[in-house]
Amino acid sequence: MTVILGIDPGLTRLGVGLIRAGQGRTVSLIHVDVYRTPPGDDPAARIGALALQLESLLDTYKPDLVALERVFAQHNVRTVMGTAQISGVVFALAHARSIPVSLRTPSEVKAAVTGHGRATKSQVGTLVQSILGLSEVPKPADAADALALAITEAWRGTPASTGPQGPLTPAQQAWRAAEAKAKRPKLTE
Amino acid sequence: MTVILGIDPGLTRLGVGLIRAGQGRTVSLIHVDVYRTPPGDDPAARIGALALQLESLLDTYKPDLVALERVFAQHNVRTVMGTAQISGVVFALAHARSIPVSLRTPSEVKAAVTGHGRATKSQVGTLVQSILGLSEVPKPADAADALALAITEAWRGTPASTGPQGPLTPAQQAWRAAEAKAKRPKLTE
Repeated sequence: MTVILGIDPGLTRLGVGLIRAGQGRTVSLIHVDVYRTPPGDDPAARIGALALQLESLLDTYKPDLVALERVFAQHNVRTVMGTAQISGVVFALAHARSIPVSLRTPSEVKAAVTGHGRATKSQVGTLVQSILGLSEVPKPADAADALALAITEAWRGTPASTGPQGPLTPAQQAWRAAEAKAKRPKLTE
Repeated sequence: MTVILGIDPGLTRLGVGLIRAGQGRTVSLIHVDVYRTPPGDDPAARIGALALQLESLLDTYKPDLVALERVFAQHNVRTVMGTAQISGVVFALAHARSIPVSLRTPSEVKAAVTGHGRATKSQVGTLVQSILGLSEVPKPADAADALALAITEAWRGTPASTGPQGPLTPAQQAWRAAEAKAKRPKLTE
């Protein structure tokens, strides 16, 4: 049994999602939250406040692994700087507690959870709800993304099982199940 | 009496310079160091190791103020990401100890310490040596830069005194004194 913390980093909204990963592909929700700081505040105060919340989260739930979204510098520069700053804080807090940090790209997470790398935010939310058996889609998107990061980490390296048309990833199986349940048209890429 | 910590952020070399600032423009060296991490190491481990060193430094010297070099995103992207990450750690560590953090641009620091914003690294080093009355120029440049950041913070808002050709900034006074001592040609901009 492994406790995994997914973190969708940001200063305005920082998503945190904790899951328990059991045998095979079994995953269940422990905790999900979104920490916020006012965009007008001093960056040092915003990062300081988020750091205290993350520290308390780590010490409360003691995750075995942290999965953090990898930041790319080609996006909006101001946003990237804030995201890099809070990522540095995550590295430091995890290192001080000997918790390994995995970096995952958004397309890696989408591929793991929905079966294809170009899924929409809404598709990720629906799949996260289905995979964790939640009564509703986690909102805002930062909460669903944090849980998707944790699920990606949990499923890393787990062998895919075989469906009627050949091997299906667990994400594809979950997607099919969700589709059947929701009677929605099949996802087209 | 104020203890000021200047930090020149970076993952490969992180300069830290602690000074004591007294009445007027009196400043003296407390401690200077450069922390290093191997470029090939995992970013989480590098940041984690630097965070532990910074934490120990803050708890040993208990500075009243931190002066941190402001990072610009237009430089080399990989370097900027690492610098932003370690800056985030500085914000978090300082905030947890209620220590204010000032951000200073390189040209602000050069202007405060040497009297002009386009000084070379070597000129900054020479002035830092002169201002703090050191027996040699602090090496590497990251050490001198960290001390220059702390001096800039110490001198912020202190009124300039008047020299024979009109008002001279303390930096200009220090430069003249250094020039006289070293019998060097006058600095031309």
